[in-house]
Amino acid sequence: MTRTLPHPFDLATELAAVGDGRFAGRTAAPYANMVGPFGGITAATLMRAILDDPRRLAEPVSLTVNFAGPVADGPFEIDARPVRTNRSTQHWLLTMSQDDAVTTTATAVFANRRPTWAATELTPPAAPPAASVPVSEVPEFIAWVGNYEMRFVEGAVAEIEAGRPSSSTSTLWVRDEPPRPLDYPALTALSDVFFPRVMHRLGRIVPAGTVSMTVYFHATADLLAAQGDDPILATARAQHFGNGYFDQSAQLWTADGELLVTSHQLVYFKDA
Amino acid sequence: MTRTLPHPFDLATELAAVGDGRFAGRTAAPYANMVGPFGGITAATLMRAILDDPRRLAEPVSLTVNFAGPVADGPFEIDARPVRTNRSTQHWLLTMSQDDAVTTTATAVFANRRPTWAATELTPPAAPPAASVPVSEVPEFIAWVGNYEMRFVEGAVAEIEAGRPSSSTSTLWVRDEPPRPLDYPALTALSDVFFPRVMHRLGRIVPAGTVSMTVYFHATADLLAAQGDDPILATARAQHFGNGYFDQSAQLWTADGELLVTSHQLVYFKDA
Repeated sequence: MTRTLPHPFDLATELAAVGDGRFAGRTAAPYANMVGPFGGITAATLMRAILDDPRRLAEPVSLTVNFAGPVADGPFEIDARPVRTNRSTQHWLLTMSQDDAVTTTATAVFANRRPTWAATELTPPAAPPAASVPVSEVPEFIAWVGNYEMRFVEGAVAEIEAGRPSSSTSTLWVRDEPPRPLDYPALTALSDVFFPRVMHRLGRIVPAGTVSMTVYFHATADLLAAQGDDPILATARAQHFGNGYFDQSAQLWTADGELLVTSHQLVYFKDA
Repeated sequence: MTRTLPHPFDLATELAAVGDGRFAGRTAAPYANMVGPFGGITAATLMRAILDDPRRLAEPVSLTVNFAGPVADGPFEIDARPVRTNRSTQHWLLTMSQDDAVTTTATAVFANRRPTWAATELTPPAAPPAASVPVSEVPEFIAWVGNYEMRFVEGAVAEIEAGRPSSSTSTLWVRDEPPRPLDYPALTALSDVFFPRVMHRLGRIVPAGTVSMTVYFHATADLLAAQGDDPILATARAQHFGNGYFDQSAQLWTADGELLVTSHQLVYFKDA
């Protein structure tokens, strides 16, 4: 396959270095959500700021992004600061701002990883091979979903559109569209690829938005390289809904049953 | 019961305001861990800094604490900054420092909560009533555990000491010792009350330390008040171990099956 144009994901997360730990970016129409950008692309852009920083040590193990206020279409600035660098770990503090108002905060831990005893306590969700699951139709009025190929195994977005309340679990095969080799920014965005669980439970569209999202990276650079652009098995489930917030836990798996990330988020919602 | 002295927990998390968003504190010997203070008391102290700040809005919904470097016995300073205050939410960025070196970072989301549709998707672990479970003996060489009454139902610390590898799940009834009415700082510390899962799986003590911890608060102030100083049913389980890190998910429940918090953490470990 020949590609002469950059991938839309790379354009959307592109940053210009404008000083020590300061980066300038701009929201990208293809990754727009109902209001402002897709949270996953914002999180991926913050991850990319660290990866682009010459002071960066090793690979990400943890990222937490807090969505503090709306991100308007247009330019933004990221301030990325390595607040502590140890022998094998590095801690980052980041803010994204527009017109000097903070829209997003983040903290991240990067680390040199070495092989140790390993075990996976979770099991991947039951799913037929990606190739045997038809590509799902997704809502056309939300731009960002057009950048993903989604093959729902359980809890499809179509169920919400059909007004059918269901369980809060969604499981799907997913990859970037057009396909793109997996890296840490892409994995960060994919961790936020799930529609708000409350819409699945209630069977209707209600106001909802992530306020905090955490990604634990189990995938090493070698595992990412081996994954290439193959579909990822993604599953998410809510834990508790109440008093205007719910939380969700998710996992992204390779087709071979390797755990790429575990991810958690807290989401604001209205029920009317 | 008459108490004339402050509770050790309140002494350990006590802060002196030393300027806008700046607080001075000191590590407390009763909450010492094998190296430095118990992570839960550090997280609780950061929570208390926000609660003590006159700029604080409403109640916590989310807290993430990153343990960036060792905390030495002695004084520390906390810098707490409300980076964004909206109509019903407020976002905080915090750092804890010793001698101008950052030891800990944190982000928090506070929010005004209103009743909505509610549902709990998780079920509490099976456990006999707290009163019927004997209080467990815990290692005397770790100071902080002496501040908790622990009644293990599954995965007791004694299993590690006995050199018995087991599952990574621990379930226990737990409360402050001496008993103390539950509040958000105490709930924060209790979210970190579990021994490192890797020690349970391997059946031996190995070097391990939390690098990032997130707490989602489902408990409103009313639920905390109703809980008083009753034992809490706490359960934790690992999700994946490998390349020097593992992650853990935990829940704290009331005896009536109300979910107080869900909490997640990423933990560094060595296997030799």
